[in-house]
Amino acid sequence: MQYHLNGFRSGDPNCANLSETMTARADTVDVAIIGCGPAGLTLAAQLATIGGISVRIFDRKSRPLEVGQADGVACRSMEMFEAFGFVEKVLKEAYWVNETTFWRTGTDGAGLARADRIQDVEDALSHQPHVILSQARIHDFYLDIMRNGSGTIDPDYSRNLAEVKFCDDSKSLIFLNFECLDSPGKHETVCARYVVGCDGARSTVRTILGHELKGHAARQLWGVMDVLAVTDFPDIRLKCAVQSARSGSLLIIPREGGYLVRLYIELDELRGAERASDREVTSELLERKAREILFPYTFDVREVAWWSAYEIGQRVCDAFDDVPAGERSSRIPRIFIAGDACHTHSPKAGQGMNVSMADTFNLGWKLAAVIRGQARPELLHTYSEERRAKAKELIDFDRDMARLFSEKPSSTKETAQFQRYFQKHGRYTAGVETTYDRSLIVGAPEHQGMATGLRMGTRFHSAPVIRLADAKPMQLSEALAADGRFRIVAFADRNDDGGPDGRIAALCRFLGSDPCSPVLRHTPQDADPDAVIDFRVVFQKSHRQLDLNAMPGILLPAKGKLGLTDYEKIFCADPRAGTDIFDMRGVDRETGVLIVVRPDQFVAQLLPIDEYMALSDFFGGILIIQHRFQPVTAISAHGVDREH
Amino acid sequence: MQYHLNGFRSGDPNCANLSETMTARADTVDVAIIGCGPAGLTLAAQLATIGGISVRIFDRKSRPLEVGQADGVACRSMEMFEAFGFVEKVLKEAYWVNETTFWRTGTDGAGLARADRIQDVEDALSHQPHVILSQARIHDFYLDIMRNGSGTIDPDYSRNLAEVKFCDDSKSLIFLNFECLDSPGKHETVCARYVVGCDGARSTVRTILGHELKGHAARQLWGVMDVLAVTDFPDIRLKCAVQSARSGSLLIIPREGGYLVRLYIELDELRGAERASDREVTSELLERKAREILFPYTFDVREVAWWSAYEIGQRVCDAFDDVPAGERSSRIPRIFIAGDACHTHSPKAGQGMNVSMADTFNLGWKLAAVIRGQARPELLHTYSEERRAKAKELIDFDRDMARLFSEKPSSTKETAQFQRYFQKHGRYTAGVETTYDRSLIVGAPEHQGMATGLRMGTRFHSAPVIRLADAKPMQLSEALAADGRFRIVAFADRNDDGGPDGRIAALCRFLGSDPCSPVLRHTPQDADPDAVIDFRVVFQKSHRQLDLNAMPGILLPAKGKLGLTDYEKIFCADPRAGTDIFDMRGVDRETGVLIVVRPDQFVAQLLPIDEYMALSDFFGGILIIQHRFQPVTAISAHGVDREH
Repeated sequence: MQYHLNGFRSGDPNCANLSETMTARADTVDVAIIGCGPAGLTLAAQLATIGGISVRIFDRKSRPLEVGQADGVACRSMEMFEAFGFVEKVLKEAYWVNETTFWRTGTDGAGLARADRIQDVEDALSHQPHVILSQARIHDFYLDIMRNGSGTIDPDYSRNLAEVKFCDDSKSLIFLNFECLDSPGKHETVCARYVVGCDGARSTVRTILGHELKGHAARQLWGVMDVLAVTDFPDIRLKCAVQSARSGSLLIIPREGGYLVRLYIELDELRGAERASDREVTSELLERKAREILFPYTFDVREVAWWSAYEIGQRVCDAFDDVPAGERSSRIPRIFIAGDACHTHSPKAGQGMNVSMADTFNLGWKLAAVIRGQARPELLHTYSEERRAKAKELIDFDRDMARLFSEKPSSTKETAQFQRYFQKHGRYTAGVETTYDRSLIVGAPEHQGMATGLRMGTRFHSAPVIRLADAKPMQLSEALAADGRFRIVAFADRNDDGGPDGRIAALCRFLGSDPCSPVLRHTPQDADPDAVIDFRVVFQKSHRQLDLNAMPGILLPAKGKLGLTDYEKIFCADPRAGTDIFDMRGVDRETGVLIVVRPDQFVAQLLPIDEYMALSDFFGGILIIQHRFQPVTAISAHGVDREH
Repeated sequence: MQYHLNGFRSGDPNCANLSETMTARADTVDVAIIGCGPAGLTLAAQLATIGGISVRIFDRKSRPLEVGQADGVACRSMEMFEAFGFVEKVLKEAYWVNETTFWRTGTDGAGLARADRIQDVEDALSHQPHVILSQARIHDFYLDIMRNGSGTIDPDYSRNLAEVKFCDDSKSLIFLNFECLDSPGKHETVCARYVVGCDGARSTVRTILGHELKGHAARQLWGVMDVLAVTDFPDIRLKCAVQSARSGSLLIIPREGGYLVRLYIELDELRGAERASDREVTSELLERKAREILFPYTFDVREVAWWSAYEIGQRVCDAFDDVPAGERSSRIPRIFIAGDACHTHSPKAGQGMNVSMADTFNLGWKLAAVIRGQARPELLHTYSEERRAKAKELIDFDRDMARLFSEKPSSTKETAQFQRYFQKHGRYTAGVETTYDRSLIVGAPEHQGMATGLRMGTRFHSAPVIRLADAKPMQLSEALAADGRFRIVAFADRNDDGGPDGRIAALCRFLGSDPCSPVLRHTPQDADPDAVIDFRVVFQKSHRQLDLNAMPGILLPAKGKLGLTDYEKIFCADPRAGTDIFDMRGVDRETGVLIVVRPDQFVAQLLPIDEYMALSDFFGGILIIQHRFQPVTAISAHGVDREH
């Protein structure tokens, strides 16, 4: 964590300076968010963190979520929580999914037997674990960020969206009309430059946009319950799929706190137009089914904390914004939908909350960059393009998964097939398989061979490093905060020690003083040199072999109103584990590589260190030229005499 | 973290149920604490965590600390913060001390050169790092615990202790009279069963007890300042001792947040009766001295966040409680002093705050156990005995350290000597060398050979394990919360799998049903079976080789009002690092061992697994018999048919 940049301030460093707090409850805002679920709160938290954007967020409910709903947090979502700065709270409170077991009817046709036991997340998939924590707690952590950000965002509850329309033909301002559920008859109106509908599967925003969730709702009815129970089933504290030949299937998801457990229980198929609500499912019914499936083990429910019944529905919209396909080249999207509003999933794959959060983590930085005048508005098209493709992919996966889960395995072979599928999709459910297609913000993979483990369009896969200035062993991801900044991460070649003849020093000269430097071009004159593009270097040499004073000035930039030096730009490989970030990520040790990382941590571009013009061009396609006149190095306290 | 035991409750699991909150501001309390420094707050937090004790805490100051004072947090203090449940916040905000460098005047007599660079904490000393964080933030975290504990404790500020006296001859109740600094002329009175003076080096409580801080105040004047500065000295983000031949010495302690730095600067010797305040030290003087010592490097202070000047004083009291030496066998202490009130140190060794917190971490559980009627009141004598001896030891170390630091090394040999001393005392400054002498609560070391790395009287040194029920890889220390409970940790022999013929099962039979079982003897009838003595087992076999259902019932106890099963008592060695807890702690693999761990995490007793009577006798010497009639296993939902 970096703080005290603009002078020492006592108190909690997680709270931004109160004097910077923007006026809340403005009538006209940059962004209006509809819905305080995971998608809406991720977006609000992202905009609060970046700052300088006026936001209001509305919810039909009268207060924050307290119980139930989603609970699975994929590794990739944990990485995102790390970028938001609250992952340590989740790690502390959550249940960690370490192993998954599979039980089925014994070979004698009676009883249950453990058929297999596997590691839940394969080694080295992520430095973060797969965990289970109540959605309500995730909401709490986001609400904390929204309160503590530079512009405090406090939700408006009991607001039911009644009307959305453009204020004028230019389609630059949107009028929103809310019914105040806490004072009948009263309405409230707000104008917003952008509207994001995170209002769930029955989304009003989606309906107004005329989009439809398409796909078949599966007809399988499922029950879910969070219970405090006493059982002699030995795997009750492991994620566990139980397939009983006679009584159906259930999935055990142990919950946080050591006692609570969630059960997903297979019920009957629905017939015709029948809805889940028609079946009059009760918690007693779910308890009885659970006991039947787990027989001969006992299962004595002492308290039901929450329960629900639903049918599996895998559906997705054709577009996630308001611009018809034919108008994409001439019109910028102003209204977006995200999360369940544009795609719904089977809870079995544990993806709903994770994908919803990934939607708005994708959208948030784009909205912020356009609103702040940093990026070209065309950037906003990439949200629907990228996330719609991924939602579709997930629906396909999800449907397969749900089908496999519902099928009663009639043989050992079928069971084995299910388990293989389950394992194979571990990377998928971990959320680390997402690969965005080539676009404005994902370059061509022509240099992929220079870093085989940092694949274009996938999330930047962290690895351990040592920070040069203070010798701190850390994950490189700690330097990739969700603060809306692009990052250039240069991996030095084998011989480079930052000295004037090396390629890192040459790159620094380009970035710090060349008129084509994307850093100089796209950073406003009064901003810190790393305000828009944050440049970091990872050396192969050990931190004891390098001389901080020999480093180019742009790697020790002067920042803030006091001109203090930022010492956190330079990292070294950490060889202590017998391998290091260069080996782990397949970086070519002879050439090094330059990676452009998007504000949502995805690999945007991968270039040889000295392809300066390609780097300039890439940023030029996304960002607006700000005409920063001063070379970065001239304002560095370290600069000038050491500048090579 | 375990929660939801007595039914599901939404919201922050770090907050105890509000309905359990005790009345604050009572006129008569179990414990009155004087002083809201590290010692006072550690004690208040400990009592709040244990619960069921009425506490008030008073401070002369008008509000919580905001700046300055101590900043070094030793590894052992971090382990204690882990036990209190807030170490993750400190890890996130703090500066991590990874390496220490030593600079001195160059061999040519001019300039400065780095003479050495060492790892700050030797490998495997602790699983927690040595960090630097403002004392004010540590206070904040303790205040959070006090607010969130089962009995909320909220400090009374602006209260200056004016009078302390026993209410009657029985010396069982103490009368306290406070001057209300926020309303002149007004006084407030409180009665307490126990009083703890954590009121600093000028302690009123110590004065009233007639104790004196003894020892010589060194005559060396030092300045300390927290600054935001710009410098080209390359080790400004490393802990660094600079000894300039001409201009004196300083110690650089980088601070949290990446920009702030603390300097300890050597000033002149004081003469005669001169005091630090006589010298009219200014922050400008400190800046000038710093620049002189760091010359030829630049050091441009942009903001002074805090500064002070002081003379090093190493002093200690003869006793830390109110019972004269001659009356110890006939009288129980009622008034205690802790922290700076009974010992003061040179800040150079970074020990002040750490030792103060260790004082009251030692005292807290003892007070709680006696007040709650669990332990014999004689236990309270051990506080002064144990902590006074350790304070004395520290003073000796501290004096050597301060002397060495002030001496100008005239030769390379002397410099090398200083560095060796510095390194040698790494274990000491990390706080892990503390070894309490044999007493009521520290047994004889006759079986030490069975676990050479878990030394009698030292803190239980954690190591990685895997929890059986959920396969979670974790530090065993996570099971050693600061909740006032004794723990029995049994390390199983090589062949033991918990089966009925093994020694663990036999130990379980003894603990669960024998009339001599300390668990049955000392646990109140209506309490959970692990409320007083928490029994845990570590097996050598891997978690996939063990059968949870084959475990004795006492290891899966039924708890709380719902009779839920606690699944967190059984651990397995984690062999993934190529070594495991048995190897790391020198536990005899053939015999296993039984360790009794005190509520403050110190090793109290070390026995062969089957020395049941020695175990009974040990607890019998400390705890009061509660006559629990029911064997533990009979109330276990898992018990009976599986009980061997």
